[in-house]
Amino acid sequence: MGDSLSESTLTQSEVINRVVNLFEENMPFNQLLGVRFVTEDDSIRLEVPWDDKLTGNPLQKILHGGVTASLLDTIGGLTAILSAVKQTQDRHLAALVERLPTMGTVDMRVDYLRPGRGKRFIATAQVIRKGSRVAVCRMELHNERGDHIAFGTGTYMLG
Amino acid sequence: MGDSLSESTLTQSEVINRVVNLFEENMPFNQLLGVRFVTEDDSIRLEVPWDDKLTGNPLQKILHGGVTASLLDTIGGLTAILSAVKQTQDRHLAALVERLPTMGTVDMRVDYLRPGRGKRFIATAQVIRKGSRVAVCRMELHNERGDHIAFGTGTYMLG
Amino acid sequence: MGDSLSESTLTQSEVINRVVNLFEENMPFNQLLGVRFVTEDDSIRLEVPWDDKLTGNPLQKILHGGVTASLLDTIGGLTAILSAVKQTQDRHLAALVERLPTMGTVDMRVDYLRPGRGKRFIATAQVIRKGSRVAVCRMELHNERGDHIAFGTGTYMLG
Amino acid sequence: MGDSLSESTLTQSEVINRVVNLFEENMPFNQLLGVRFVTEDDSIRLEVPWDDKLTGNPLQKILHGGVTASLLDTIGGLTAILSAVKQTQDRHLAALVERLPTMGTVDMRVDYLRPGRGKRFIATAQVIRKGSRVAVCRMELHNERGDHIAFGTGTYMLG
Repeated sequence: MGDSLSESTLTQSEVINRVVNLFEENMPFNQLLGVRFVTEDDSIRLEVPWDDKLTGNPLQKILHGGVTASLLDTIGGLTAILSAVKQTQDRHLAALVERLPTMGTVDMRVDYLRPGRGKRFIATAQVIRKGSRVAVCRMELHNERGDHIAFGTGTYMLG
Repeated sequence: MGDSLSESTLTQSEVINRVVNLFEENMPFNQLLGVRFVTEDDSIRLEVPWDDKLTGNPLQKILHGGVTASLLDTIGGLTAILSAVKQTQDRHLAALVERLPTMGTVDMRVDYLRPGRGKRFIATAQVIRKGSRVAVCRMELHNERGDHIAFGTGTYMLG
Repeated sequence: MGDSLSESTLTQSEVINRVVNLFEENMPFNQLLGVRFVTEDDSIRLEVPWDDKLTGNPLQKILHGGVTASLLDTIGGLTAILSAVKQTQDRHLAALVERLPTMGTVDMRVDYLRPGRGKRFIATAQVIRKGSRVAVCRMELHNERGDHIAFGTGTYMLG
Repeated sequence: MGDSLSESTLTQSEVINRVVNLFEENMPFNQLLGVRFVTEDDSIRLEVPWDDKLTGNPLQKILHGGVTASLLDTIGGLTAILSAVKQTQDRHLAALVERLPTMGTVDMRVDYLRPGRGKRFIATAQVIRKGSRVAVCRMELHNERGDHIAFGTGTYMLG
């Protein structure tokens, strides 16, 4: 995470910016998928444009189910971490940052609602169970027309 | 699926070969991941070598959770289809082949057991609930040393 | 289901009434739990009063996790069936009624959000994936004060 | 849990006996279901005899899906706790016992494989992910003839 993240003078917004940057710039598989994050007010969403390499069904231009799962897991995990950051006082942020490498998905369910067709895909998440050690998120994937493609539910270890 | 798959003279082994070929050669996202299938006796497994682009955790060489989900979903879906082929009489195979484009994952759960480290990853599946319309599979992902990385459970629509 | 349900003159509202009655009066385990159904406009909800016999945690008056799962599964299954009835033309209702005994839960996920405390519990469901053979529902359990106790997601076979 | 469980002289086997006794004698809903536990060597299983009040399907003598979920959740939760006890040194057992009231199910998936028919039902579990804070179990339900009725997967908070 870089040395500066270990400093005791961290603020929530600094940590948030760096975690988002980590997810966007330093996770090779997210870059392979073309993932970008858009922050608006207090929420964050994931966006990814259609790309032929994401095709699962060869007969139609439809997202591979694994892409859908990847996007849902990514926004769920990021949202869980950001939620933990937001409920952590500044003086405890350095400790949270040190636990980042051990954070991860415990389990996830994906419900596929309709074929993943679209020019652009938007994934969002909300925390439904907050805790100091474990968070549970519900996630959704829509296309640019608002068609609801998939639901997800993920349980995340917060270190 | 190509014209010849619609012929009434199809045999189970022909259909199996073509479905496996479809998953291996004509699903762009599977090719992006580097997925190969290995048939042995009556079973099939998925193999994929480590590649830096599959990295999720930037601090350690660990598979992105979405890659794990993708591999489990792929072997589960393929195993569900092959199971349906094997319980279909030759004269009904053409009808099954026509339903292939509407087959797909209904829902999936992934349980992440340990970090996805390894040089090579092997995904296997078994059908735990067979039906004419819906099949349920349990899937596992191991690395080349036999470390168990993840469990999956998937419900698949058979058209 | 009784002879009259097999008649070809069935209407949707007749079938709905009888299915609800079946769930409420003829499923012994629902009666053991004290389940009642309340219809309002186009929606239906399940209600059950607190009863000491439903206790899981002996140190606090909290619902057993299995009770929560039971209530969610019950409202999810009922909602899936009623949704199928509502999208079936009257002349096809008799065929649907004949398939009722083979309808059932394929899989379900329950997310426990907070301890199941309350005087009364209300379970609701909505169909998120409709199909002729399989439906997927999301379910919620609240107490009488509106505290959100649990989420559920269920996949149901419609015969 | 009684005063003696708070003593610093607790041994693993004492704690195990008392936890099993708690599940069997002091959880009213388990008693309503007729749950008993059988210990054999290092493993424990849950057994429950058929009882008409457990019926879900009124047309056939089949377990209510909620009963299946309840039995799986119960054996999963118990197995998770016992596993935590077994990896805790005697001098730390008192602290673990104090956390017992906050232990509970985070999420659970149930896969229904075949109708729940039988004279007696046996539920077993194994821990697939061990941790100090969270454990994940896989559970199975069979009848007395060995027919496999359901799979479960549960994530449990260990306090």
